[in-house]
Amino acid sequence: MNTKKAHPPFQPISNNDFTSALRDQILIRVERDYEEFNKTHTFNFPTWLYGPPKGKLFKVEVEDCPRFGDKAFVEFDSGRTAFLSIDMQIDFCGPKGYVDVMGYDLGLTSAPIKPIMSVLHTIRNGTDIKVIHTREGHLPDLSDAPYNKVLRSKIIGNGVGIGNIPKGGLGRLLVRGEKNWDIIDDLYPIPGEYVIDKAGKGAFGHSNLPSILNNLGITHLVITGITSDVCVHTVMREANDYGYWCTLLKDGTGATDYGNYQAAIKQIKMQGGVFGWVSDSHKFVVAVKSAFKMGLT
Amino acid sequence: MNTKKAHPPFQPISNNDFTSALRDQILIRVERDYEEFNKTHTFNFPTWLYGPPKGKLFKVEVEDCPRFGDKAFVEFDSGRTAFLSIDMQIDFCGPKGYVDVMGYDLGLTSAPIKPIMSVLHTIRNGTDIKVIHTREGHLPDLSDAPYNKVLRSKIIGNGVGIGNIPKGGLGRLLVRGEKNWDIIDDLYPIPGEYVIDKAGKGAFGHSNLPSILNNLGITHLVITGITSDVCVHTVMREANDYGYWCTLLKDGTGATDYGNYQAAIKQIKMQGGVFGWVSDSHKFVVAVKSAFKMGLT
Amino acid sequence: MNTKKAHPPFQPISNNDFTSALRDQILIRVERDYEEFNKTHTFNFPTWLYGPPKGKLFKVEVEDCPRFGDKAFVEFDSGRTAFLSIDMQIDFCGPKGYVDVMGYDLGLTSAPIKPIMSVLHTIRNGTDIKVIHTREGHLPDLSDAPYNKVLRSKIIGNGVGIGNIPKGGLGRLLVRGEKNWDIIDDLYPIPGEYVIDKAGKGAFGHSNLPSILNNLGITHLVITGITSDVCVHTVMREANDYGYWCTLLKDGTGATDYGNYQAAIKQIKMQGGVFGWVSDSHKFVVAVKSAFKMGLT
Amino acid sequence: MNTKKAHPPFQPISNNDFTSALRDQILIRVERDYEEFNKTHTFNFPTWLYGPPKGKLFKVEVEDCPRFGDKAFVEFDSGRTAFLSIDMQIDFCGPKGYVDVMGYDLGLTSAPIKPIMSVLHTIRNGTDIKVIHTREGHLPDLSDAPYNKVLRSKIIGNGVGIGNIPKGGLGRLLVRGEKNWDIIDDLYPIPGEYVIDKAGKGAFGHSNLPSILNNLGITHLVITGITSDVCVHTVMREANDYGYWCTLLKDGTGATDYGNYQAAIKQIKMQGGVFGWVSDSHKFVVAVKSAFKMGLT
Repeated sequence: MNTKKAHPPFQPISNNDFTSALRDQILIRVERDYEEFNKTHTFNFPTWLYGPPKGKLFKVEVEDCPRFGDKAFVEFDSGRTAFLSIDMQIDFCGPKGYVDVMGYDLGLTSAPIKPIMSVLHTIRNGTDIKVIHTREGHLPDLSDAPYNKVLRSKIIGNGVGIGNIPKGGLGRLLVRGEKNWDIIDDLYPIPGEYVIDKAGKGAFGHSNLPSILNNLGITHLVITGITSDVCVHTVMREANDYGYWCTLLKDGTGATDYGNYQAAIKQIKMQGGVFGWVSDSHKFVVAVKSAFKMGLT
Repeated sequence: MNTKKAHPPFQPISNNDFTSALRDQILIRVERDYEEFNKTHTFNFPTWLYGPPKGKLFKVEVEDCPRFGDKAFVEFDSGRTAFLSIDMQIDFCGPKGYVDVMGYDLGLTSAPIKPIMSVLHTIRNGTDIKVIHTREGHLPDLSDAPYNKVLRSKIIGNGVGIGNIPKGGLGRLLVRGEKNWDIIDDLYPIPGEYVIDKAGKGAFGHSNLPSILNNLGITHLVITGITSDVCVHTVMREANDYGYWCTLLKDGTGATDYGNYQAAIKQIKMQGGVFGWVSDSHKFVVAVKSAFKMGLT
Repeated sequence: MNTKKAHPPFQPISNNDFTSALRDQILIRVERDYEEFNKTHTFNFPTWLYGPPKGKLFKVEVEDCPRFGDKAFVEFDSGRTAFLSIDMQIDFCGPKGYVDVMGYDLGLTSAPIKPIMSVLHTIRNGTDIKVIHTREGHLPDLSDAPYNKVLRSKIIGNGVGIGNIPKGGLGRLLVRGEKNWDIIDDLYPIPGEYVIDKAGKGAFGHSNLPSILNNLGITHLVITGITSDVCVHTVMREANDYGYWCTLLKDGTGATDYGNYQAAIKQIKMQGGVFGWVSDSHKFVVAVKSAFKMGLT
Repeated sequence: MNTKKAHPPFQPISNNDFTSALRDQILIRVERDYEEFNKTHTFNFPTWLYGPPKGKLFKVEVEDCPRFGDKAFVEFDSGRTAFLSIDMQIDFCGPKGYVDVMGYDLGLTSAPIKPIMSVLHTIRNGTDIKVIHTREGHLPDLSDAPYNKVLRSKIIGNGVGIGNIPKGGLGRLLVRGEKNWDIIDDLYPIPGEYVIDKAGKGAFGHSNLPSILNNLGITHLVITGITSDVCVHTVMREANDYGYWCTLLKDGTGATDYGNYQAAIKQIKMQGGVFGWVSDSHKFVVAVKSAFKMGLT
């Protein structure tokens, strides 16, 4: 065998005919979609990429896209769409939970409840849109809680942190199985919906969420939950890196600080939608109802 | 074999003696560290968790911790600390790059350059602190670029997006191997430093960064780079979920919008430091120089 | 800013003074451990790497290491060791389960039961060795089951595959929540032990197993379960890639084919232990009992 | 808000109408494909799952499927197929490399070279089948090499392990950038092909391989390389868990021990093809040539 190396170690960083051909295919299509977008302001569901629709196509208006003051539309295939309700747990929006103990305003984190209820009600009324709930929490022995997380929560909670029971509380903060850890009744999952338990702010790294989304053929995500700047943003960022087309419903999310909530919304819109798009529950519900011929009540 | 099941499927959600014992061990220690923190306002390097220091211990002041107006200290083991310089590429802070083409103010994203230079200079002057650089970019044939990412960049760039060459530009935007994709000269890696190439905003999912950090025994990260609200935040969130003790140097980072920059800083400080802590290059450099007995110039 | 690039894109593939220093540190230590090994035939628990022992140190004899016919010892720190019992489910070793329906000999996959019982009994008798059980199975709606997996099981099961109920069976094959999916009674987890549910043959990719192992500071794994060549090997390979020191207890595992079982054992031993080491339940139990001063009954 | 919990924590382990509906959809289809398979012995490319073919459909004969003595066919969409050449590096099949130093027979690991050349030649002759090469190796400073891996290689190599230069060797064993680490000339990647560098036996965990496969819409993998029982099997297992339809070309792979090679082939065939299927380079080449109307020379 000839072991004389005639070339330096192969690095996929070469600009040549073959690579150009593949790249140019993509750029030609992007050019076409760009021109199309300039006319229609719509991100059409890309059947060329994913195949023919599995469900019903519908368009949702998104705001400040591509620039502030503009509006655009994102087209969904209901059969490839999943709705995410992130961490709507008592610990984050209910009395005596994790966030309450830290002294934050539950009015802010509970504000998304009614909008999310409205969306769930619509989705559950005969659509094929998948629903996925997440819960952040730790094993009862805290073996999956990074120590710095436990310590910081103890400090900010004035001695009551992860694993402790607040005075008058329902159970140990942020611990799986405790009443305060579970999803609030108004948004409780129903059979057929998915629940992802996660020990961190993100959800893609250490759960079967990627498997489920992949097997279900999901391409587009509609994101709600709490808190806007922590778990919601982290999950949206992960999903976006995975290539999902993500849309946040801004009234379906809230943060522990109103300024951070506003910034979280704004940050998504930068760069023409660096993490995806922003819409609201009304626009989404109207679009779904129309597609599925539901009465607009 | 007895196949009669005497119990429901085992769920690790049981509050019983053994689990309590493990949990209580952690809570007892947290209680002790909490009381210690109230006296010293210091997050000591936890030798009980990681072992004796490998390098030199030094403390860095962090701001607004646990609450706005407070200050605290984080103690580092230089032998277990890595400094991250995230995406200091021409594409993000130089003329005719990705961010410039979108019309953003390069003054904002280039502001961190001098502070990062200062920190690198200090670290490189005989310390054992590891240095890791990241670069965001795509393979020349764009096979690792999600289509929605390419399309959105095309739109916001007025027809010049990922893979295109801006007029008067150095090369194809955000493509590996192109001049604009590489790290700016002032912050260029030197031998012995690590470079992680990533196709997304995050870095932990699809690179060998976790392996390297793990093998090097890193526990604490010092984070700088651009942009504050996009890649820096995404990497910090990932690292925090992995249990790393993360500190952002706020003058070592910048965003495409000043309000978003400020919000990105503030978001870290919520909940007593939900993603870690915030300090600045001066405080960090002074602490390192003192530990390594360098002159304070 | 100076954008003139004086060097090609930084690639961490350079052989220079600084990199050599880091590499040589490792090679010097390896040289020393190599010479030590030649004298003692022992892989000492590396306190230089992980810190002082958290529990008790004990040595277990491993076979055919480094070469066939040799024997060696692996030293464990009980406080950093986890025992894995992989997929000891009715579906894999009990009547009318997944493996039985395929027509394989349950005698082979049930052979490990008594040895695993013996090890669990010893570990549960006052040691600090962690115990982790895994279960392979799919969500009841099969949304996390790759289609080719479901189809192949249907074919080999003569019409009865994943999700179907065999005649006289306990429930739907390989579906979470079904009696046949759960761990057999003799090896059922007790409180304080961990249970990892996985949808595939591997366990590290889509579960919180890495988080738990990391937070618990585990370095060494003792592996048993079924089947040797499928899930046991896949998990061992993953763990080995993560840097865990893995030892398979050969009588604590079985396969659907005896030749494959033997090959699975042999494959581990190649290259001086490419995936780790091989020992047996007796050697392990004797070593643990001795370390914890238990009677040798 | 009503915080009274009317139900225990939601666990997706419920057998009810809605879940049944989703599951039954899958089982109905599997029933149909099962009956179809009984007639045609073909695993048709599932357009219902992935969409219409992007390239050309072609069938490849696979052996011992579903049972030993049977034969079947797997249908590929060339536009969604990737060919993997795993670790065909001098270190594994050339003189003075990693495997040679351990004393193994290079005849076994170099046997796949000609078959792989034949397949590459065919694929490169105008097809749209993607080609992906992998290389196992470590950073020059060994920071991504688990210590036990370095130590074991030192021992089995009689003092010459990872990072060392064998007498008369080309460079440091298994180190990126060294001549011995690179792919042999006969199988060297050409522009347009992908190269994945990995530090372990597996490839999916810490590289951008998942991103690339996902973005390229790959569904079916054709696997070759070395060694059969180590990296090839590990990658095939990972891919299979991800849902890829995997076929190993048995003459395109080799191991350090012939018995282990045979067992590696056999292990894939168990359970109707637990990790996928087995074919050979001739069958594959004939099928591709026929589909692309190439002369059968």
